[in-house]
Amino acid sequence: MAEDSCQDPIADALQILNLLAGVQPEHLKENESLLPVCHRVAQLPKYQVIFHDETISNYVVNRIFQSQKQKLIPVYMDACGLSKKEAEMLTLFVITGTYNVNKALNWNSNSVWYNIHSILFRFMSGGYERLRKHDTKRETQSI
Amino acid sequence: MAEDSCQDPIADALQILNLLAGVQPEHLKENESLLPVCHRVAQLPKYQVIFHDETISNYVVNRIFQSQKQKLIPVYMDACGLSKKEAEMLTLFVITGTYNVNKALNWNSNSVWYNIHSILFRFMSGGYERLRKHDTKRETQSI
Repeated sequence: MAEDSCQDPIADALQILNLLAGVQPEHLKENESLLPVCHRVAQLPKYQVIFHDETISNYVVNRIFQSQKQKLIPVYMDACGLSKKEAEMLTLFVITGTYNVNKALNWNSNSVWYNIHSILFRFMSGGYERLRKHDTKRETQSI
Repeated sequence: MAEDSCQDPIADALQILNLLAGVQPEHLKENESLLPVCHRVAQLPKYQVIFHDETISNYVVNRIFQSQKQKLIPVYMDACGLSKKEAEMLTLFVITGTYNVNKALNWNSNSVWYNIHSILFRFMSGGYERLRKHDTKRETQSI
């Protein structure tokens, strides 16, 4: 699996998501370098055989989850006030949901693909914001 | 698969989700009848063998998706201003993400399960709200 080249993934991950959530689908292609690593890897010819083999899809999505959870768990813990277990389950939700949408779109990054992912980025951005607000409210109540 | 007994699923679905999103995890058990049908079915002894068999999990989640998309697609189209294809992909994202979290929690509705689902309900509720706001903004701009 290719390595993510992001220099400070913990600090940047939600900022990047918020940025992507605000980008119109027709401009998402121009910001392709900001997409999560598994989106980009799936476009590389040498990996396509892996992503199109239905018989190993549970194995592949689990490998992506194992690789990405190291990066995402600290982000969700910090930004949304979640415990490690809660952050791990949110990572699993997001990774497996996104993987299955990519599979249904045949990993084909055409205009439909950019449009659907633009909607998913907005959906997730709204979700993180709601969790952050809930955490802030909890903190205020405990003062 | 058991039938959902909800009388008006299209009108009620997002209201129920918002209600669940505001319920503390320790009170979620008392509101179990409001949980999506696949959560409840998975607790029934006669269906447990299906939900615990890893070899058919892709088939099972696909059956749930096929069954639930009839109900959810019109809800997402109406409430979030999505096209049919966009609503279908959001349904797939939510169903497969939730299914995989349930699987990781071993379909065991204990206090951890209620806590994680409470977080996911909040996350999804925030996501739908963001899509609704985006749609309203788009409508306002086009006037």
